[in-house]
Amino acid sequence: MAVNLHIPDKKDIHPVKGVEIGISSAGIRTEGHRDITVFRLAPNSAVAGVFTTNRFRAAPVQVCEQHLHKEQDIRALVINTGNANAGTGEPGLADARQTCTELAKLMDLRPSQVLPFSTGVILEPLPMPKLLGALPKAVHDLQDDQWYEAAHSIMTTDTQPKIYSTQLDLDGHECNITGISKGAGMIRPNMATMLGFLCTDIGINPKLLAEMTRDIANHSFNRISVDGDTSTNDSFILVATGQSERYIDSVASPYYAQVYKALKEAALDLAQKIVRDGEGASKFITIQVEQAKDATEALKIAHAIAHSPLVKTAFYASDPNLGRILCAIGYAGIDDLEVNKIKLWLGDVLVATDGGRHPDYIEADGKRVMQSSEITVRVALDRGKHSETVYTCDMSHDYVSINADYRS
Amino acid sequence: MAVNLHIPDKKDIHPVKGVEIGISSAGIRTEGHRDITVFRLAPNSAVAGVFTTNRFRAAPVQVCEQHLHKEQDIRALVINTGNANAGTGEPGLADARQTCTELAKLMDLRPSQVLPFSTGVILEPLPMPKLLGALPKAVHDLQDDQWYEAAHSIMTTDTQPKIYSTQLDLDGHECNITGISKGAGMIRPNMATMLGFLCTDIGINPKLLAEMTRDIANHSFNRISVDGDTSTNDSFILVATGQSERYIDSVASPYYAQVYKALKEAALDLAQKIVRDGEGASKFITIQVEQAKDATEALKIAHAIAHSPLVKTAFYASDPNLGRILCAIGYAGIDDLEVNKIKLWLGDVLVATDGGRHPDYIEADGKRVMQSSEITVRVALDRGKHSETVYTCDMSHDYVSINADYRS
Repeated sequence: MAVNLHIPDKKDIHPVKGVEIGISSAGIRTEGHRDITVFRLAPNSAVAGVFTTNRFRAAPVQVCEQHLHKEQDIRALVINTGNANAGTGEPGLADARQTCTELAKLMDLRPSQVLPFSTGVILEPLPMPKLLGALPKAVHDLQDDQWYEAAHSIMTTDTQPKIYSTQLDLDGHECNITGISKGAGMIRPNMATMLGFLCTDIGINPKLLAEMTRDIANHSFNRISVDGDTSTNDSFILVATGQSERYIDSVASPYYAQVYKALKEAALDLAQKIVRDGEGASKFITIQVEQAKDATEALKIAHAIAHSPLVKTAFYASDPNLGRILCAIGYAGIDDLEVNKIKLWLGDVLVATDGGRHPDYIEADGKRVMQSSEITVRVALDRGKHSETVYTCDMSHDYVSINADYRS
Repeated sequence: MAVNLHIPDKKDIHPVKGVEIGISSAGIRTEGHRDITVFRLAPNSAVAGVFTTNRFRAAPVQVCEQHLHKEQDIRALVINTGNANAGTGEPGLADARQTCTELAKLMDLRPSQVLPFSTGVILEPLPMPKLLGALPKAVHDLQDDQWYEAAHSIMTTDTQPKIYSTQLDLDGHECNITGISKGAGMIRPNMATMLGFLCTDIGINPKLLAEMTRDIANHSFNRISVDGDTSTNDSFILVATGQSERYIDSVASPYYAQVYKALKEAALDLAQKIVRDGEGASKFITIQVEQAKDATEALKIAHAIAHSPLVKTAFYASDPNLGRILCAIGYAGIDDLEVNKIKLWLGDVLVATDGGRHPDYIEADGKRVMQSSEITVRVALDRGKHSETVYTCDMSHDYVSINADYRS
């Protein structure tokens, strides 16, 4: 079902020096499902994260933020699927903390050196005995070649694992970048029911890494939308273990630009894979808004298009019902927008100018573009020089089926 | 398919003195379909309107605003379905003006005494010869008992006509209030692909009527949501013909409160009928947000819940997946919201307190409420004294089918 989602061969997934992964089954939601994933990180890894803006931040998100704030040496991540530990109040916080404490005991760490992550159903208590019972096996099985299995074990409504891996040659030293992500619904800018873990063995100054993480998230995971719902649990973590022989101390480092670009590409790939596997998706849609006054208005318009159920169902039907796109532009909330100056392209086809249909536009051209599984919508506003791009998918019957049946 | 949508008996629809309606078939979209509706209003009727906030305001909306601004004596309305005359640029404006001019000739009026309305597909030119050719028959057939037929002739994806009628006894004089509306998708606060026409034979001071119209729209048509899309064509028109023996000059009038209440009830009924006939709707959902600091934050939260596809698909599935409601509250954009103070009820069942599930809540109770076709979600914020209510429906497979197939 996923749209052109590339899953690399196992042989092309490069272990990251200083990262080991162990997986086990707690049966939180389904008996026998491998739903617990533990990362062990080498000492003195730099770790940074960005988290959901939802006011109902899940308990693990709150604990992550606390631990990242007080701890210089994060050494482990623990992820469960099947239950989000969100909307669980004080008992949920205690459960997230206990998870860290128990894992820390097994790994000879302080609890604050562990970051917890949960994804799944909201408003139900974590089944702690099951979860804690599964931790020893995950720790016992820690290995450096479990990325592919981890991409599977963090899935919820995902139909495909999401994994990206590359190598960089930094002056003769081969360094590794590998990451995984999950999420298919409840996806909207400012994160999603989305987890992303991206690791490199390049060393990066922790303060610089924190800045890079915010910036990279803003241009990847915060540029995607499936259904406009911002989840309680969204987390993106960037780890730099420093176990290779290359270190980046500042933006002036000779490797900075190359590494930044590679990490951003990795995050964008992992984010786009979430859209490609969007619940019920049959098409991958890129929305480019150009000639805006600033990023805010470009993003308002891009998101209005990306969130419109009417636009998304028209894409599903391969119906060039492009008035729905103009309509979404019109209600995006730009009060002084002059609609007669807007140009709208569907793929390479100029559709609208002067507040209406372009004279040369014919339906057959629109139809041709709409039948592709990869579609670009381009809007030029004639107001300035700013451009922004967001990524979304169509809305199909399967979106409804998946979300109507999720808990059953 | 519509949810508990009451269609009154024809005998219970009261003509409004000073309002005649004629209907004819232009075959704009479907040959033989009765798609043209003309209203003739008695001289010196007071007429007020509110229109879409979409920047791509359709041509007829722009012409309506111009005519209402310059003309004291509006005498006719003309409505076509099958084509929205939106996203049609200058030629579309010329078409809307020509429609007024031709109807004015047939009715011996000035063009500015005519208000035009269009609803249907966006971005396609109006087929003017067909439209103009159908006007004479509509004018010829003007009668005072055509409300029921008019409710049918303004339908697009509506499955049911929407009509409301009542009588008021104002000190021994029976006065009439009758209205119709249309719309089923592209429905969101600040109007919708929504047309509403509400008429009374009570006389009302035109300035007062304009204020009442804004206020009434704000508490009816601007409180409904089907899919979160604000259309290019939304229009709500309130007509007071003054042909009965009662006149309201100011809010100090002895009849003001009674008439205001009756008109507001009429508009709310016509607005709710749009939700009841929401595309694919199987449930009617009332969302009440209480104890807010002000209307803005109450509405932000109510609309976040009403617009969430995840919440709406859960209602469709009768699945008390209530974490999705908490999640929507959390991303509504209230930065200082203290989630631990929020209470959430589903019908009469207290679901969430203290940031999590209420200790007494059991799934069976939630399930029982979810199975009803009329569901109330109540959220108490513990921040102030303001309450707001919005109305929405669930999201089903049929929503996707209807919108994927609309033009075929």
